[in-house]
Amino acid sequence: MIRHVVMFRFLEEAQGRSRRENVLATRAMLDALPAKIPQILRSETYIGDEGAAEGNCHLLLISDFADEKALEEYLVHPDHKAVGAFMRPLRESRAACDFTV
Amino acid sequence: MIRHVVMFRFLEEAQGRSRRENVLATRAMLDALPAKIPQILRSETYIGDEGAAEGNCHLLLISDFADEKALEEYLVHPDHKAVGAFMRPLRESRAACDFTV
Repeated sequence: MIRHVVMFRFLEEAQGRSRRENVLATRAMLDALPAKIPQILRSETYIGDEGAAEGNCHLLLISDFADEKALEEYLVHPDHKAVGAFMRPLRESRAACDFTV
Repeated sequence: MIRHVVMFRFLEEAQGRSRRENVLATRAMLDALPAKIPQILRSETYIGDEGAAEGNCHLLLISDFADEKALEEYLVHPDHKAVGAFMRPLRESRAACDFTV
């Protein structure tokens, strides 16, 4: 199984909304994906702690896929791409790691 | 409990060693920390998949702490700082996220 972990930092403000609003809106979109994309075996999102170290990420996604093929199908899935397009103007940075479990 | 997740990208080559050698050496140092730092309740490291998307991280650390105070004690612990000093010339980037579980 492949575990896909992604961290996002958000801009302080974007599209007329606060960072907090954008983090929560993005999280809701990510949490809706498993119902739309059967390749997602399991998906969890976490909000970064407010008091955490400077420079830390604001949102973390952990999702599981059967294999590399399933992960690739997810990455190009229109519902996943829609979340990417929504997030792009909101985020400051993104870091990802895929590993076999 | 606080979960501390960190992703590292490594330089292709550093200190006369390949990325692969540096990733494995760093992982071994991180894996040795729980025996030295009692604040670490649990710690896991994962090597990023070779075939994964361009720009992905090479090493992921997930460790758990009782609370914010324990995490802070870990961050300033000399054995943790020694790993940081070892890694600094090897890495290209670092991203972290702390969240409450």
